[in-house]
Amino acid sequence: MESIQQYMQAVGADARAASKKIAAATVASRNAALIAIKDAIARNREMLLKANREDLERGLVSGLDAPLMDRLELNNERIDGLLASLEQVANLPDPVGAIDGVRTMDSGIRVGKMRVPLGVIGIVYESRPNVTIEAAALCLKSGNAAILRGGSEAISSNRALDRCITEGLEQVGLPTAVVQVVDTTDRAAVGELIAMPEFVDIVIPRGGKGLIERIARDARVPVLKHLDGICHVFIDADADPEKALAIAVNAKTQRYGTCNTMETLLVDAAATALLPSIATAISDKGVELRGCERTRQIVPSITIEAAEEDWQTEYLAPILSVRIVDGIDAAMAHIDQYSSGHTESIVTENYSTAMRFMREVDSSSVMVNASTRFADGFEYGLGAEIGISTDKLHARGPVGLEGLTSCKYVVFGDGHIRQ
Amino acid sequence: MESIQQYMQAVGADARAASKKIAAATVASRNAALIAIKDAIARNREMLLKANREDLERGLVSGLDAPLMDRLELNNERIDGLLASLEQVANLPDPVGAIDGVRTMDSGIRVGKMRVPLGVIGIVYESRPNVTIEAAALCLKSGNAAILRGGSEAISSNRALDRCITEGLEQVGLPTAVVQVVDTTDRAAVGELIAMPEFVDIVIPRGGKGLIERIARDARVPVLKHLDGICHVFIDADADPEKALAIAVNAKTQRYGTCNTMETLLVDAAATALLPSIATAISDKGVELRGCERTRQIVPSITIEAAEEDWQTEYLAPILSVRIVDGIDAAMAHIDQYSSGHTESIVTENYSTAMRFMREVDSSSVMVNASTRFADGFEYGLGAEIGISTDKLHARGPVGLEGLTSCKYVVFGDGHIRQ
Repeated sequence: MESIQQYMQAVGADARAASKKIAAATVASRNAALIAIKDAIARNREMLLKANREDLERGLVSGLDAPLMDRLELNNERIDGLLASLEQVANLPDPVGAIDGVRTMDSGIRVGKMRVPLGVIGIVYESRPNVTIEAAALCLKSGNAAILRGGSEAISSNRALDRCITEGLEQVGLPTAVVQVVDTTDRAAVGELIAMPEFVDIVIPRGGKGLIERIARDARVPVLKHLDGICHVFIDADADPEKALAIAVNAKTQRYGTCNTMETLLVDAAATALLPSIATAISDKGVELRGCERTRQIVPSITIEAAEEDWQTEYLAPILSVRIVDGIDAAMAHIDQYSSGHTESIVTENYSTAMRFMREVDSSSVMVNASTRFADGFEYGLGAEIGISTDKLHARGPVGLEGLTSCKYVVFGDGHIRQ
Repeated sequence: MESIQQYMQAVGADARAASKKIAAATVASRNAALIAIKDAIARNREMLLKANREDLERGLVSGLDAPLMDRLELNNERIDGLLASLEQVANLPDPVGAIDGVRTMDSGIRVGKMRVPLGVIGIVYESRPNVTIEAAALCLKSGNAAILRGGSEAISSNRALDRCITEGLEQVGLPTAVVQVVDTTDRAAVGELIAMPEFVDIVIPRGGKGLIERIARDARVPVLKHLDGICHVFIDADADPEKALAIAVNAKTQRYGTCNTMETLLVDAAATALLPSIATAISDKGVELRGCERTRQIVPSITIEAAEEDWQTEYLAPILSVRIVDGIDAAMAHIDQYSSGHTESIVTENYSTAMRFMREVDSSSVMVNASTRFADGFEYGLGAEIGISTDKLHARGPVGLEGLTSCKYVVFGDGHIRQ
């Protein structure tokens, strides 16, 4: 029997070969493949539900917790969601082949940049089988080959989805290796996937912090990673009280488990008059407040002291830490020290303060007078999102189809030689 | 005495702190620093020449070869070149702070992207002390802090240049840690530099293949690397004979030691009538030709057989391998197998063939009817070049100031909250 290493090497070599075919495929055939996969899923709905039930039963036996069981489930509504998302990705503009910025140089050559696929994209994710289709669709649309490595708890669902993808690719005459689902639950497969630079151009881990840190540490290929979202809202001395209240409440309470939710509220010492009503509004939604000493003096109902650890924590829960700071410099110093570089927002009517915050805060999204909850590929008009990058290189912030492409220089000459 | 690790950690921490100052500095002060460094170099010319003589004398004693000794030398002409390049970088447009593509979303928020510095850039290079100034200038202009690690053979020159940089930074009131020259010849310093993701955002190695491969393998920070330049020119069946001759001769013989020099000439079997005159012209320049079997039948004066190894070799010398291929598919298959992904050019008058080559060849520069020698930051109008990336992520091809920056999303709201 072949080893995991041999298996993954074969997967990698097949993906590399298929990546050249899909890169050269027309957008019409890539879109046709997406629709063919959609039709295959619709046709095989019962088979998919049955496969998913196997995963769910296995999950029950092995004692998966409720949130994990929820993420693992494929029901009719979620399958409808997959069908809609395939249709939607097919309708997005082609991210590949655009040539931008062509200029004529003094030498006479004309130089521009052409957007091209990255090649082979590895995606490592956890329980949600939906990701199998969403990631496959985005890679396929952007002309890349994909190697998908889902969680072992979803192996039956992922195998069933893989059959639908294969049917769709075959139907339009594209190589089935354009999308490969790794067909083993052996964890060593991930170790191999992230160590094949000859076959894999980038790995995108989606999942818990432990998974992502491990992959970032061990990878020998580039990794597009999304670590924590410790997001801040800073209420400046010149904040509009109504906007401050609306944004603080929305940034914390619109959803608790998302990476763009505010985890720490910073309030200028000159704006503390706004704090009691904001604290009450957020607390009334059932959020536990933890305050610095000055915060608790101003809002005595906040009884829990925010410890050093609170500033460093992505709660992903109805908990908010609150700190009073002396001016924008102190606010930016706190952000610089504790932010994960995801999203920060300032509430202010002062033009110069707003511009300074926007310029100097080093996060993937920096906002003025808007809720951090807007940091999202769909809200930014990307049409789709494969993840949110907290890295600075290549792609930063919400990553859509363009983040799955690269640019090469193209030169149009007419017999030009260099002098 | 502190260890190398302690020393490099301190350098890294100082660079990180300085990176925040330089990122927030105005373009006027960054340009003023460049001119102040220029003035310091002009003032200290004798000191620089003396320091360089120490390196040259040490090089002679340790038996450095002639090309290395040449690269190591700083003479009056080269110092004039440094002064001119500082002036030129100061005159380039500011790459930082531009906001592009602001659009209003359905929600009412306005979203765009702002160009920002990367942070701290580590540069590892070999003998040429010029790089100390060129790299410092590009990092400074783009609002980044730099940690420069030159070759041990140039340590006296680099220390002297560092004093000029420090004088210039002090004069305009910027932290001297904006540019730090690593002041040790201990090789362990490189190992530390590439393993401090908390302090270093990207490392750019410039030098031999061995150095770059070692850094790419061991780095725990992103690496912008430039490996070989095995560049191809393909003379298509529909090539214009005059353009084919001019481009083939120029691509091989205009300079031999550069990474954008052609190393293999591919000729369509239907275009071999052009081969004898091209072979003669290149051979007359003193280039050794090595041909595949069919090439040698058509041009019997080519007596050396091109072996498998030739297709894999970046000669950087007056040697050219020549292969006859059957059509564009065979040409692209050869390029796919042997190219280093740097630069390839097709000579053809056929529109569809040209478009296909441009679309499907996966190299950082793809050209039609132009010499590969044009693949260069200055020829592409970038104004400056820190290197040529053969990677696909972040920056590909010639890397100018823009490659030393990143983009963050900026959101302009007016109290907007997410529904």
